[in-house]
Amino acid sequence: MRLGLLGFGTVGSSFAEVLAAGEHKEIRLTRIFNRGVDRKRQHERARFVPADTIWTENVDDVLAASDVDAVVELIGGLDPTEQWLRTAMTAGKHVITANKQLLAFRGTELLGFAANHRVQLLFGASVAGGVPVIPGMVQGLSGDRIRRISGIVNGTCNYILSEMESGANFGEVLANAQRAGYAEADPSADVDGYDARAKLCILARLALKAELQPEHVPAQTIRHVGAVDFPYAKELGCTIRQVSRAELDGGGVVHARVGPMLVPKRSPIAWSHGTQNMIVTSGRFGGDVVFSGHGAGGHPTAVAVMSDVLAVAQGSSAVRLPIEKHEVTGDVNAPHYVRLVVADRPGIVASIAGALAKEQINIDSILQHRGHASDRLPFVVTTEPCLRSTLDRAVETMASMDFMLEPPLVLEILVDQDRDTD
Amino acid sequence: MRLGLLGFGTVGSSFAEVLAAGEHKEIRLTRIFNRGVDRKRQHERARFVPADTIWTENVDDVLAASDVDAVVELIGGLDPTEQWLRTAMTAGKHVITANKQLLAFRGTELLGFAANHRVQLLFGASVAGGVPVIPGMVQGLSGDRIRRISGIVNGTCNYILSEMESGANFGEVLANAQRAGYAEADPSADVDGYDARAKLCILARLALKAELQPEHVPAQTIRHVGAVDFPYAKELGCTIRQVSRAELDGGGVVHARVGPMLVPKRSPIAWSHGTQNMIVTSGRFGGDVVFSGHGAGGHPTAVAVMSDVLAVAQGSSAVRLPIEKHEVTGDVNAPHYVRLVVADRPGIVASIAGALAKEQINIDSILQHRGHASDRLPFVVTTEPCLRSTLDRAVETMASMDFMLEPPLVLEILVDQDRDTD
Repeated sequence: MRLGLLGFGTVGSSFAEVLAAGEHKEIRLTRIFNRGVDRKRQHERARFVPADTIWTENVDDVLAASDVDAVVELIGGLDPTEQWLRTAMTAGKHVITANKQLLAFRGTELLGFAANHRVQLLFGASVAGGVPVIPGMVQGLSGDRIRRISGIVNGTCNYILSEMESGANFGEVLANAQRAGYAEADPSADVDGYDARAKLCILARLALKAELQPEHVPAQTIRHVGAVDFPYAKELGCTIRQVSRAELDGGGVVHARVGPMLVPKRSPIAWSHGTQNMIVTSGRFGGDVVFSGHGAGGHPTAVAVMSDVLAVAQGSSAVRLPIEKHEVTGDVNAPHYVRLVVADRPGIVASIAGALAKEQINIDSILQHRGHASDRLPFVVTTEPCLRSTLDRAVETMASMDFMLEPPLVLEILVDQDRDTD
Repeated sequence: MRLGLLGFGTVGSSFAEVLAAGEHKEIRLTRIFNRGVDRKRQHERARFVPADTIWTENVDDVLAASDVDAVVELIGGLDPTEQWLRTAMTAGKHVITANKQLLAFRGTELLGFAANHRVQLLFGASVAGGVPVIPGMVQGLSGDRIRRISGIVNGTCNYILSEMESGANFGEVLANAQRAGYAEADPSADVDGYDARAKLCILARLALKAELQPEHVPAQTIRHVGAVDFPYAKELGCTIRQVSRAELDGGGVVHARVGPMLVPKRSPIAWSHGTQNMIVTSGRFGGDVVFSGHGAGGHPTAVAVMSDVLAVAQGSSAVRLPIEKHEVTGDVNAPHYVRLVVADRPGIVASIAGALAKEQINIDSILQHRGHASDRLPFVVTTEPCLRSTLDRAVETMASMDFMLEPPLVLEILVDQDRDTD
C-alpha cells in the first residue's frame, strides 16, 4: 500500500518515524504535502522519510496521484480539509485521519460518503491519541449495550485541575501550562470544553450508537473553578475534573454534558493525573470498562494512525455499528454542588434554602470551612438529585440576593454506577 | 449467520441472553450441545433460547450440522475440545471460543489450522472476560512496538490479596472466597498462578509477538504471602498483587513471570480492587496503555463472545500480527523484597548481609517493625536490581541458617517504567 501524507507537523513527523520503525515492507510513504517543504525537509524527523518520497506544496499532487492508495490526513480543521478528503475518496483512496473536528461535525456524512465510494475512513487517532478506545469499543464491546460513556479526554484541563488540587489558582496554573507547552496561547478550545465536546460526540456515536451534534452538548468552562473548591470536594470524598459524559436514558434520550464535575475518589475517572486521558464505558452486560493512557502527543497519536494504516493495508474492516437518531439534552438529573461566596450576615442559609425549596430541591449537605473572612465567605450546598434546569432557576434567584458577591458555581456530582455483574 | 453453541453453563446461558438482547436478526442460534439437556432446558436463562433451537447431547449434531456456520465453544479444557474445534474448522465452520487453556497451549497451531481452512478463530473472551484487551491491542496498538505487558488477570487472587491488605490471613480469606463463590474448592489453578500464566501466554503472543509456552513461565504461589507483608509493603509505598508480566529485552529474550509482587501505589496496577482485571501495555512510542474491567463472570465474558460473533458475522477480519520465536526466561533482573522470620539473636543481620554480599547483591533497605515477639521476628530486606537466580542462591544460603524459622519469601518489586512521550 502506498501512502500520501497530508501534514508533516508533530504528529505527521512522528508518524514517519513510527512507520520507519515498523519495517512494514508492504507499506510505502510515496508523497508528503506540506507548506514550506524546504523547511520541513530540515525537520529533525525528516530523516525517517525515505529518500524517494516526493515532497510537495500542492495538495493535488497527493489527492490525484496514481501512486497513492491511502491518504493520511494530519492537518486538522474543517475547511478545506473536508473537501480534500472527499476528493481523495472520490478517487478511490482510503482515508486515515486524526481530525476530531471533522469527525465530530461531519462524521456520519463522511462515513456514508466513504461507504458509497467503497473506501475505508478510519479515525482511531481522533480521540485520546494513543488510547485505543475507538478500536477497543468497536471490536471489543460491540456485543454489549453501552448506556454511558464518561471520561477525561482533554489533557490540558486535566493537568490544570490536577495542579489546582495542590492549592494553586486557575490563572497561575494556566500560565505555567502555557509556558510548558501543555496549553495554547488561546486556551478557549481546551478550558471552555469545545475540544472535549467534539471528542465526546465521536465517542457517543460509537458507544451509544447516537448521533450527537457538538452544538447540542452544553459545555461549561473550568475557568470559574477556584482553589477553594478542592478542599470542599475532598470533604465530599471527591476531586474535580473536566468530565465529558453522555448517557442514554430508558426513553432513548441522550443526556450529555462537558464541564468540571465532582468525581468520587473511588471512581476510575479520579485515577488519571497530569495529561493522561481516561475513558469509562458502562455496559448493560459488561459493566464498567476503563481505557487509559497518553491522550495526546506526536508519538502516541502516531501509534493510533499507524494501527489504522495497518488495518487498511491488510483489508481488515471494522465492525459496523448502526447509528440511531436520539434526542439530546444537557439537562442532567444528578446531585449537584453549589459554591457560593457571600458577605456573611444572619439569614443567608435560610434565604438559600428557601430558593431551593421553592423549586422542590432537597439539600443534601451544607459545608462551611473555617478560616475564611466573613466579608467574603465561600460555602457549599450539595443537593439531592435534581434536574440541572430546575437548579439553574434556583441559582438565578440566589444570584440576585444582595449578599451574593459572585455568581454561584454549579458542578454536577458524578455518581458511580457500576454494579456487580454475574 | 447460524450459530452452534457448545456449553450452556454460566457463560453459555449468559451468551444466549446477550444474543437475544441484541436483536441481531442476521444471527440465529440454531443448535446447543450440552450434557443433561432436560435439566439445562429448565435453566433460568433458557427462556432466551429461541423455541426452534435444537438441543442435543451429541456434539456431532453441532459439529457436522449443515445449519451451523460458526461454533461458539464455551466448555473449556484441552481434550476433547481441541479435536471438536478442529472437526468444526475442517467442516468450514468459524470458531469463537473463551478457552484460555486451549489458546495458551495450542493457540499458534490452531490459528494456523484455521487459516489453512479459511475460517476465523476468534478468542477475545479467553483473557480478562469483559475487558477488550485483545481486540484493543490487535486493532489499536498494532502500530506500536510493545515491550512489556503486565497486569492482573486473575480476579480470585486479586480479591484474596485485596482482602489481606486489611490484616486477614491467607487461609481465612481463601475460605471466605470459597464460600462467596470467588474461589474453587481446589484453588490451585488460581492461587498457584496456572490460570494467570495461560492468560499471560495469550497476551504476550499478541503484545510482544512472542511465542511463549506456559510451562516455560515460572509461576509463584500466593499461599506464602502473609498478613505481615502488607505493612512492610506499605512502608515501601507499595501493595502486593498477583502480577503477570512479560517483557522483551533488547536482545530479544522474553522475561516472564507470574506471582505475588510488590506494586507501587502510584502504578495503575495498584488501582484494581476486588475481582477487577487490569492490564497495562508499555509501548515504545505510545507509552503505557491501561485496560480494566470485569475480568470474569457470565455476562462480561458473554459480551466478549458476542463481539467476536458480530465480527465474524460481518466478515470483519482482525489485523494479523507476525509471531516470532523468542527465548523465554523467568530470571528477571529487578529489585526484590525478601521477608525473613527468625528467632532473634545478635549477628543475624550480619549473616544475611554476608549471604547477599557473597552474590554481589546490594541491599537497598532493611525494615523491622516493632511489636513482634523476638522469638518469631519477621523482618524485611530489599535489594537493588539483581537477577532472581542470583538472589535465589543467596536465599538458599539464608534458608539453611539455624535462626531461620521458615523459608524466606522473595517477591519482585515492580518498577514503574512509563516515560513521558512527546
